[in-house]
Amino acid sequence: MVTTGSQQALDLVTRLFINPGDVVLAESPSYVGALGVFRAYQADVVHVAMDAEGLIPESLRETITTLEAAGKPIKFLYTIPNFHNPAGVTLSWGRRLEILDICRSHGILVLEDNPYGLLYFDQPAPQAMRSVDDEGVIYLGSFSKTLAPGFRVGWALAPHAIREKLILANESATLSPNSFGQFVITEYLDQTDWKGQIDTFRHLYAERRDAMLSALGEYLPKLSWTKPEGGFFVWVTLPDELDSKAMLPRAVKELVAYTPGTAFYSDGQGKQNMRLSFCYPTPESIRTGIARLATVINGEIDLLQTFSGANLTTPIPTRSSVTTPPPNTL
Amino acid sequence: MVTTGSQQALDLVTRLFINPGDVVLAESPSYVGALGVFRAYQADVVHVAMDAEGLIPESLRETITTLEAAGKPIKFLYTIPNFHNPAGVTLSWGRRLEILDICRSHGILVLEDNPYGLLYFDQPAPQAMRSVDDEGVIYLGSFSKTLAPGFRVGWALAPHAIREKLILANESATLSPNSFGQFVITEYLDQTDWKGQIDTFRHLYAERRDAMLSALGEYLPKLSWTKPEGGFFVWVTLPDELDSKAMLPRAVKELVAYTPGTAFYSDGQGKQNMRLSFCYPTPESIRTGIARLATVINGEIDLLQTFSGANLTTPIPTRSSVTTPPPNTL
Repeated sequence: MVTTGSQQALDLVTRLFINPGDVVLAESPSYVGALGVFRAYQADVVHVAMDAEGLIPESLRETITTLEAAGKPIKFLYTIPNFHNPAGVTLSWGRRLEILDICRSHGILVLEDNPYGLLYFDQPAPQAMRSVDDEGVIYLGSFSKTLAPGFRVGWALAPHAIREKLILANESATLSPNSFGQFVITEYLDQTDWKGQIDTFRHLYAERRDAMLSALGEYLPKLSWTKPEGGFFVWVTLPDELDSKAMLPRAVKELVAYTPGTAFYSDGQGKQNMRLSFCYPTPESIRTGIARLATVINGEIDLLQTFSGANLTTPIPTRSSVTTPPPNTL
Repeated sequence: MVTTGSQQALDLVTRLFINPGDVVLAESPSYVGALGVFRAYQADVVHVAMDAEGLIPESLRETITTLEAAGKPIKFLYTIPNFHNPAGVTLSWGRRLEILDICRSHGILVLEDNPYGLLYFDQPAPQAMRSVDDEGVIYLGSFSKTLAPGFRVGWALAPHAIREKLILANESATLSPNSFGQFVITEYLDQTDWKGQIDTFRHLYAERRDAMLSALGEYLPKLSWTKPEGGFFVWVTLPDELDSKAMLPRAVKELVAYTPGTAFYSDGQGKQNMRLSFCYPTPESIRTGIARLATVINGEIDLLQTFSGANLTTPIPTRSSVTTPPPNTL
């Protein structure tokens, strides 16, 4: 089924499956736009741990056991297996099969969101989960990252019975997807070397990923971050005591911005994280941005060290009183 | 707010305002696509009578009184004031003001859907209700009928606080409306004589309306129908004993089709009605279509008259046994 971007597929699948209080499993962290949809339908989002190889099967199993013991209805697992947004990691092939097994045995549908799959850097990502299980997986694709987001053309591959219901829900939501954009895309695929264009994008983004990773190594060697093999995003972990959201206004003042990690959790986690995107800026801008970010982060760390050594009988100034001391303190 | 056709505006407004069981007031009959949305959100649709001048204010007042006495929460009135789909009638200016007054005094929002307004035949429709009440009315516009439906570009004008919530709901549903279609439409409006194009459409559709009304007068003089002053639709009322839905397969066999009236009610009314559209076929095809329809309708009437004169001790054959008598009766 063609959709108004894969965002609409998220909306329609959620509309179809979720009653208030139903559980959606999602990676920890997960895509902010999907979390917003799940929240809008009053789903209970439960995050499942991931590492450098993606979602951890053992954590998935434990989470399901706990939820089932509590009598919670689990409707689906939402996953971005390739070049994850925001985490930047890719789910290994072995884990894909294991996760499919787990979900199948618990009657849990898999919602496989794959907007970045073709944008790999060195080698293609493993095959789609949908390719080995077309009854248990709804697969979402999109032209937003490989051609242009402004067409709002995505698609959902769903098991027959679900697809029929999605088509009716889509008709109610928008009557039909925009056909003009589809005609343009059909011509584009037919008349141009679109695979060559994607290769151009792959090299462009690989260069930017390299610039970001090397700048992080140079300017912020004490932090940790993921090493994406495709897509747009690096997920950075700050020292425990920092709060990426509280720090954002200072960063913006230094002319660098990021998305605070809390946006990617439904439960308040993520204070120590930030999502950095290397999609749009040039390698030079990326270096400049990371250098500015280092200034901000090192400034925060210095500040915290200063005050952690302060006499505790002296009240610790709030952040705002530090950055803009009121005139009467001078 | 730009929407993916005004269908999406209907979806988002309903999503925003309706809890299961809330009342939506709608004309009797009303647009099938809107009724589908209201039903999807489990609204209780209550139809309000209309006549050749559109929605009847006195009926609206009575309906509200009855519903309020029963403690039913009425969220909004959905209306198509111009060249109504499916009824073909137009709400008079006096009634627009009266209906706005009634809704204002009962705290009922008005959802004014105006896809056909520019497609008038002799004189423009009265001004939009929104033009005299921008706090109590959400107005829906669309390029689907004046340019092309395949762009899926419509818009909603809403009071500020509602608009902000609609924008968030739209972001959750589709991230953003398709910008490519909007760019194309911007160029179209800027570079072409779009008003002249609409004049061309107006004359085209007026000619088709004329063809339909004159063919109805010629071939089906005993029926009654509305006289649209714009738009696409004529609403036909059949004799009491006919059922437009049951008759449809016979009509299709005669190579003519229509939409049965029951599609435009949420409560099973409309058996005696059919919506005829003069938008697409040429005047010649319209004459041919009405002639075929007359054959079907007159055939149904003859059939009913034959059997109403039959000896009642003889069982009346069912429709299917009449059209295809089983071999053993011969």
